[in-house]
Amino acid sequence: MTDVIKAVIDAINKAESIVLSSHISPEGDAIGSVLGLALSLKKMGKKVSVINSDPVPEFLSFLPGKDMIALSGRLGAAHDLWIVLDCEPARTGMKDYDNPPVGKVVNIDHHITNPRTADICWVDPEAAAAGEMVYDLLVAMDAPVDKDIATNLYTSIFTDTGSFRYSNTDEESLVKAGRLLSYGVNTWEISEHVYETKSYPRMKLLGLVLSGLERSGDGRLAWVSVYEKYYAETGTSAEDTDGFINYPRAVKDVEVALLFRETGDGRIKVSFRSKGRVNVSSLAESLGGGGHPNAAGATLTGAMEEVRGIVVQKVSALIDKALSGAA
Amino acid sequence: MTDVIKAVIDAINKAESIVLSSHISPEGDAIGSVLGLALSLKKMGKKVSVINSDPVPEFLSFLPGKDMIALSGRLGAAHDLWIVLDCEPARTGMKDYDNPPVGKVVNIDHHITNPRTADICWVDPEAAAAGEMVYDLLVAMDAPVDKDIATNLYTSIFTDTGSFRYSNTDEESLVKAGRLLSYGVNTWEISEHVYETKSYPRMKLLGLVLSGLERSGDGRLAWVSVYEKYYAETGTSAEDTDGFINYPRAVKDVEVALLFRETGDGRIKVSFRSKGRVNVSSLAESLGGGGHPNAAGATLTGAMEEVRGIVVQKVSALIDKALSGAA
Repeated sequence: MTDVIKAVIDAINKAESIVLSSHISPEGDAIGSVLGLALSLKKMGKKVSVINSDPVPEFLSFLPGKDMIALSGRLGAAHDLWIVLDCEPARTGMKDYDNPPVGKVVNIDHHITNPRTADICWVDPEAAAAGEMVYDLLVAMDAPVDKDIATNLYTSIFTDTGSFRYSNTDEESLVKAGRLLSYGVNTWEISEHVYETKSYPRMKLLGLVLSGLERSGDGRLAWVSVYEKYYAETGTSAEDTDGFINYPRAVKDVEVALLFRETGDGRIKVSFRSKGRVNVSSLAESLGGGGHPNAAGATLTGAMEEVRGIVVQKVSALIDKALSGAA
Repeated sequence: MTDVIKAVIDAINKAESIVLSSHISPEGDAIGSVLGLALSLKKMGKKVSVINSDPVPEFLSFLPGKDMIALSGRLGAAHDLWIVLDCEPARTGMKDYDNPPVGKVVNIDHHITNPRTADICWVDPEAAAAGEMVYDLLVAMDAPVDKDIATNLYTSIFTDTGSFRYSNTDEESLVKAGRLLSYGVNTWEISEHVYETKSYPRMKLLGLVLSGLERSGDGRLAWVSVYEKYYAETGTSAEDTDGFINYPRAVKDVEVALLFRETGDGRIKVSFRSKGRVNVSSLAESLGGGGHPNAAGATLTGAMEEVRGIVVQKVSALIDKALSGAA
């Protein structure tokens, strides 16, 4: 057991009332890690509350314990301990995050970018999910784990690894996910909620968008375009395009995928995704945007065709340059 | 260790030359289990050949050892032992399957329907994949496992559980998959080959098909239709529609999904998929087809609109009946 885990356990043992939070726009790991820990602490006899600034997304509303989550933009009342999961305190959206009414702040996160501002910072970038760290913690402190707790922690790992498809999947995450199943977790129920509850209008929008799939002559660049008029045709909105860029990226031989989206105010939002061999972040930056090597974005002024022409040319040149040695 | 595993190990130990086969139209588990075992037997010093009747699909051509696979419709030459994986001997497509030129036949399979015709039949329906059984076998006989062998066996489990999304995912399959990763398996490379190498024409066809997504008034039935003309428009063929039925099935509130496909000879092939609460097999049978409770099919004579009208009405009534108590 590392010193920082010991310090986290010590802080929990000394606290009577504990409040937990995760980040704005929560996904599976945010909700799963916070509820998994909250339910176990409650079973240990602690006074536990969960305060998040954004509601639980509908596809996660099956998670046991979700009614524990109160919605607020402030921690408000005093607690002995504030545990922040899957993000730094600032990203909880709590207005009183930098002067919280608590005795101590513990931060449990797996993002390497965590600025380590909390009193006790346990940051493990090797962990596939914050929920995996919570599982380690519960095992280390011999805390209660039951089917409800395991369902939350399994959902954390399952969603943050993209059902074990992403490169953060490793021996640890698979074996721990397996151990969690032994508590009676219904894997198919979780799969169904996470992957089989797409909205009907969104699916029709996906059809329209994919019908317009295009690619470069050499097949290494593929892109889709989302026009404003599509939303009215299908009863959708911009948020429904979330994840669409994965489809052109999934095409064979594609190195970089692009999604062009009309914003409704004369601009085009461009998303860039790379399969890993081409770094797209500096190009996005040079266009006034930013991001990571494999996932970046920028917003350009102009009409769809014009912006697409410019960006496709620039990205094609970038791919040529990046892979010139590899061909 | 069970008696049947002991018998399998004994047969392997006594054999000098071993031939392995898997089923026609092989997928990840067929190829992964056969190559995983073949590579380990080879390392043990056995004379090993692999004979399959169908070639390795392109998305699996990255699997180490794939050049060991010879294509033939007969076993031909004599061997001490024939090991059949992930199917019964008849499904290997070998014309000499019921009188093979071998000393003994060992059958390793996880399908409950296996008729157990081989000399030694190890059938474990609890296993998520034949590759999982091969891993158990290698551990039981303390046989060599290296990165290449582990990559094959991991791919078996990964693909047969739908990247751990299907209900056959359990503690055993996750923990064993995790153990296999410890041999240096590149999970992202496998994910990329399995899930990120879709053909460009197929993706455009998917767009066309999804644009025409329809559903019943109560949203419990959704369907897509594939017209012959789509193939010419996108440069695809009927095989490219494989898996398309998963998209209407993934829509929220859908209990049963249908795919209607023009066959080009005045008939319509109908595929049925249920999320589990409605049994579609007897309806498919009553239409001259068949299948399993959650996955069935039938081919009807008639034009698209006519067949669709009839089938949609019948399935809607079936859903009403099946869920009348649950509403």
